Amino acid sequence: MTIGVGILGGGTVGGRLAQKLLEDRATITAKTGLELELIKVAVRDLSRTRLFPNQFATDDPWSVVKDPQVNLVVELLGGLDPSFPLVMSALELSKPVVTANKALVAQHGPALFAQAGQQQVPLLLEAAVGGGIPLIRPLSESLAGERIGQVLGIVNGTTNYILSAMDSTGTSYQDALADAQRLGFAEADPTADVSGADAAAKATILAGLAFGSWVPVEQVYTEGIENIKTAEISYANQLGYIIKLLAVAEDTEAGVAVRVHPAFIPLSHPLASVRGANNAVFVQGPDLGQLLFMGPGAGGGPTATAVLGDVIDAARQLTAENRIDPRIRFRPETVLDFAQVETEWYVRLEVVDASGVLAQIAGVFGEQRVSIKSVWQEGRGETATLLLITHSGPEQNHRAAVADLRTLPVVKQVAATMRVVGDDQN
Amino acid sequence: MTIGVGILGGGTVGGRLAQKLLEDRATITAKTGLELELIKVAVRDLSRTRLFPNQFATDDPWSVVKDPQVNLVVELLGGLDPSFPLVMSALELSKPVVTANKALVAQHGPALFAQAGQQQVPLLLEAAVGGGIPLIRPLSESLAGERIGQVLGIVNGTTNYILSAMDSTGTSYQDALADAQRLGFAEADPTADVSGADAAAKATILAGLAFGSWVPVEQVYTEGIENIKTAEISYANQLGYIIKLLAVAEDTEAGVAVRVHPAFIPLSHPLASVRGANNAVFVQGPDLGQLLFMGPGAGGGPTATAVLGDVIDAARQLTAENRIDPRIRFRPETVLDFAQVETEWYVRLEVVDASGVLAQIAGVFGEQRVSIKSVWQEGRGETATLLLITHSGPEQNHRAAVADLRTLPVVKQVAATMRVVGDDQN
Repeated sequence: MTIGVGILGGGTVGGRLAQKLLEDRATITAKTGLELELIKVAVRDLSRTRLFPNQFATDDPWSVVKDPQVNLVVELLGGLDPSFPLVMSALELSKPVVTANKALVAQHGPALFAQAGQQQVPLLLEAAVGGGIPLIRPLSESLAGERIGQVLGIVNGTTNYILSAMDSTGTSYQDALADAQRLGFAEADPTADVSGADAAAKATILAGLAFGSWVPVEQVYTEGIENIKTAEISYANQLGYIIKLLAVAEDTEAGVAVRVHPAFIPLSHPLASVRGANNAVFVQGPDLGQLLFMGPGAGGGPTATAVLGDVIDAARQLTAENRIDPRIRFRPETVLDFAQVETEWYVRLEVVDASGVLAQIAGVFGEQRVSIKSVWQEGRGETATLLLITHSGPEQNHRAAVADLRTLPVVKQVAATMRVVGDDQN
Repeated sequence: MTIGVGILGGGTVGGRLAQKLLEDRATITAKTGLELELIKVAVRDLSRTRLFPNQFATDDPWSVVKDPQVNLVVELLGGLDPSFPLVMSALELSKPVVTANKALVAQHGPALFAQAGQQQVPLLLEAAVGGGIPLIRPLSESLAGERIGQVLGIVNGTTNYILSAMDSTGTSYQDALADAQRLGFAEADPTADVSGADAAAKATILAGLAFGSWVPVEQVYTEGIENIKTAEISYANQLGYIIKLLAVAEDTEAGVAVRVHPAFIPLSHPLASVRGANNAVFVQGPDLGQLLFMGPGAGGGPTATAVLGDVIDAARQLTAENRIDPRIRFRPETVLDFAQVETEWYVRLEVVDASGVLAQIAGVFGEQRVSIKSVWQEGRGETATLLLITHSGPEQNHRAAVADLRTLPVVKQVAATMRVVGDDQN
């Protein structure tokens, strides 16, 4: 049985996938026993289809979805419109869908999976998070029997590239961003990346697959990297940490917590060594221990590889001549309010250099039931810099303590705060 | 539909799996929609079944395989006999098999997969390589469409523990081994681990899944860690490397090459940071870029998790009420003779400290068409130590050069040689 493949989107990934389906057809058959045949590719501009012959191109994506020769639809358009109606229609027609569209899945995941479940066709999304890293499949299959406690991800290559550049060269955020834009690692409008929005969509998906609980992306606390100062990069290093933009998903007794924010992580943590535009996801649970998946977070080649892996999987399920129970179910889950989420904090204070200052500061933290783990004093003279790391405690207590510090006469400035993640593992 | 599970082997992994199936039954059903029911566990000693109720235990493994209530067999006995006939019988009865037995798969892989193919039932082996790391599934599924060029693995936790200890404390191989034995990281008879035999079995499996080519384990060049000297550990560090026991599988134009040996790898290589009893596999290919999978290489919990993931996958395929095309096919492949395999070499020489010595040594390498990449000289006096790293060249040329060096009057001793892997990536 030959499986006809239709592709929505003929850009870097779609074009590369079309090319692979045409050129590697014999290899794929030899390795998998499957006959995959490229039928059509929906492109925006019919005059720009360099990676595959023009005869496969169309500018009508609906004609791809509806083509009776197309048994399997690959959605690489991005965005929600017309991706959402196109994917829903394909599923309604009982055609498996492979997508790399994290925004679509983050926004409409439950509806899409419900539709796929009703038609008993697979909806696969390996490339939606972590580009070319095989990650979704291990999370949703290999670890299906496992209680996953925490997922920590570096899931946005642009911000990791910028933070790595700031860390290795001491350059400012603005200069590192400008460099990243010049080298093609950041878009002209980098907002979706640097604000953490892209990572938040991926965090929702990771949490959904890891815990089987869907936390809507609007409920993901999201903070970007725009306000990170050069000073924090070097203080982090001095204290044995590195700053990374993390997607964090935790399944606690009080509920599921999903968030995206920059964080200090210990230099000895497996994620600390993930540099440049790479992505990585660190998973831990009571029985599975600690796992790290690392690889290229983007790029036409790796992403096309991930998509093709899904196409092969979906095609296998089709050739089984019977509908497989779709794999993803979500159970209702309490979403832990971010105010209750517990982390350690790093706080940098500019203080009057006088005796008794530390006692006053410790007193303020103590009133909010936050205890201090370690303190460093930098410089002497009229003003001293205090670097504090607290013990783990709720977000709201830390915020209240910092607000109180601002009213303390001996505190000239709360110069920076940042959460600390992963310290317990070392 | 309830899927009855029979387990062969009630030790750490089997006992833990039985316990999970009993205790987490509701969670598994909620997450996957599958009803898994523990039917029987074959144990060696009926009086020692602490992890699950005695009513599930039997000392007759054949009664498990043949039990009509058992729809799916998990083989955790290890070894070849009676594992091989038991697994073949289960497959003949069209019962999916999940195994963690790398020796069995390495020895009888093609026969087992052929049998599974004939009956169209899955034979899954996630836990056979890399313990709890989801690795087999990405290799055989997510990357199925991809041409994988090279797989580098740290696949034996015992030897990685010993080498890590030698590296961090400067202790000798014998002392590190004794410590590992005392702490339970090495067996009383450590031969299978330290000789590289365990890693060789895993290398055969990795190569089979990565390239779709089966290289019999007898054709895997295998060298252990028994002769690594403390001096090499520190020289490696000095030159920017660390010594790891590597399983290397390469798909080259001249054929497939699979081997296990200790190697210098650059400290900047992703595998360099894999410490202690952890395992990791590094995969690269023209399109997929570089991927790293890291996690616990052994342990009852992580391994039971991996096995349970396979059980769930196999059960899903069973509930599809139709036989799925088994996933693994092997094509005939030229096995590249180890003499032709190209690597860089590290060579430590004790030489007479006189002028012209280096010219003579370079001349010997040149005659065998091996070129020298870098040279360091250590110490002065009657004898000097020369550390050389060569450019990549065939094994046989390196061996011939080293044999010729031994005949050179200025060379007092060829104190050590070791292959260098992964240098090109940096």
